[in-house]
Amino acid sequence: MNNKYSFVGGKQGLWKVIDVRSISGYSLERVERVNVVNNAVAELPLDSSWVLQSFTSNIRYSMRDEVTALRAVQPALDRSEAMSAVLIPIKKSAQWWEMAQDERRAIFEEESHHTAVGLEYLPEVARRLLHCRDLGEPFDFLTWFEFAPEHTDAFDELLLRMRASKEWGYVEREVEVRLIRDDIS
Amino acid sequence: MNNKYSFVGGKQGLWKVIDVRSISGYSLERVERVNVVNNAVAELPLDSSWVLQSFTSNIRYSMRDEVTALRAVQPALDRSEAMSAVLIPIKKSAQWWEMAQDERRAIFEEESHHTAVGLEYLPEVARRLLHCRDLGEPFDFLTWFEFAPEHTDAFDELLLRMRASKEWGYVEREVEVRLIRDDIS
Repeated sequence: MNNKYSFVGGKQGLWKVIDVRSISGYSLERVERVNVVNNAVAELPLDSSWVLQSFTSNIRYSMRDEVTALRAVQPALDRSEAMSAVLIPIKKSAQWWEMAQDERRAIFEEESHHTAVGLEYLPEVARRLLHCRDLGEPFDFLTWFEFAPEHTDAFDELLLRMRASKEWGYVEREVEVRLIRDDIS
Repeated sequence: MNNKYSFVGGKQGLWKVIDVRSISGYSLERVERVNVVNNAVAELPLDSSWVLQSFTSNIRYSMRDEVTALRAVQPALDRSEAMSAVLIPIKKSAQWWEMAQDERRAIFEEESHHTAVGLEYLPEVARRLLHCRDLGEPFDFLTWFEFAPEHTDAFDELLLRMRASKEWGYVEREVEVRLIRDDIS
């Protein structure tokens, strides 16, 4: 199983871009489509504007009871009804990364309730967390969400709650790429 | 600052190999020298037998008081008297990686005293931890140690204590590469 994922912003791919906007810091160039590739894409393909490299990894903060609760309700990606997707690249501050494990965990969960809040939006919103800081990429994480269009309001509420949390005080760059699956092309 | 480190086993580099042996699982090929490169080495250089890619990263288990205790006594690499080095590539089991954060932390410190035992050998033994599992490499971690030759017995005792710990029950491959700095060549 290949843990590498590349998101290529350009003219190809299953996912058609409907909006790209900056939440904090500078944005990504608006493109027509995003191609999600389950591999490393070492060079920027022709007709593309950007490529974000990433990998899935082991759990970094969740405790056993949280993992069990998540696994009981979290849906798979690629559900036929989940025509909407959102890609959210995030970079956290140097101050975040200099903290010890217990300090980051306390802000992540005990103060910001990251897992507990996310759980309220399951099983509607499917999610894949990807890491990229260790690759020297411009972002630290990419989160990929998929849901049926009728759950867009619930998803937007989830974003508002996350962005109001103490954890988000350490986010120094965040971009939101909204997409719709478009099999026709 | 580049967080990427490559260890090239071949005929070049500052560090002359004095022993390569397997502790668990199969070994690495015995080479003459190891070249430590602070960058990614994408292709195996000519005259080389292996290259191990890795990166430094944020703290994964240590709590604030442990980080503070470590930083107060841990020495830098490249001390003039530290002519001996040991490179220890390790791969942990699938069972280890499937555990939640609190389960791995409990084995790492509360049961195995990884940080507490390591602290007893500071400031004699300098150490750099490198990650490689997320790169799809054959090992999960590389640990690089440097010390003056008169502290070899202390270092060997540290290894024995670590290998007797509960944490090491999850190590399924481990190789030990002993080196000596050799500026003459």
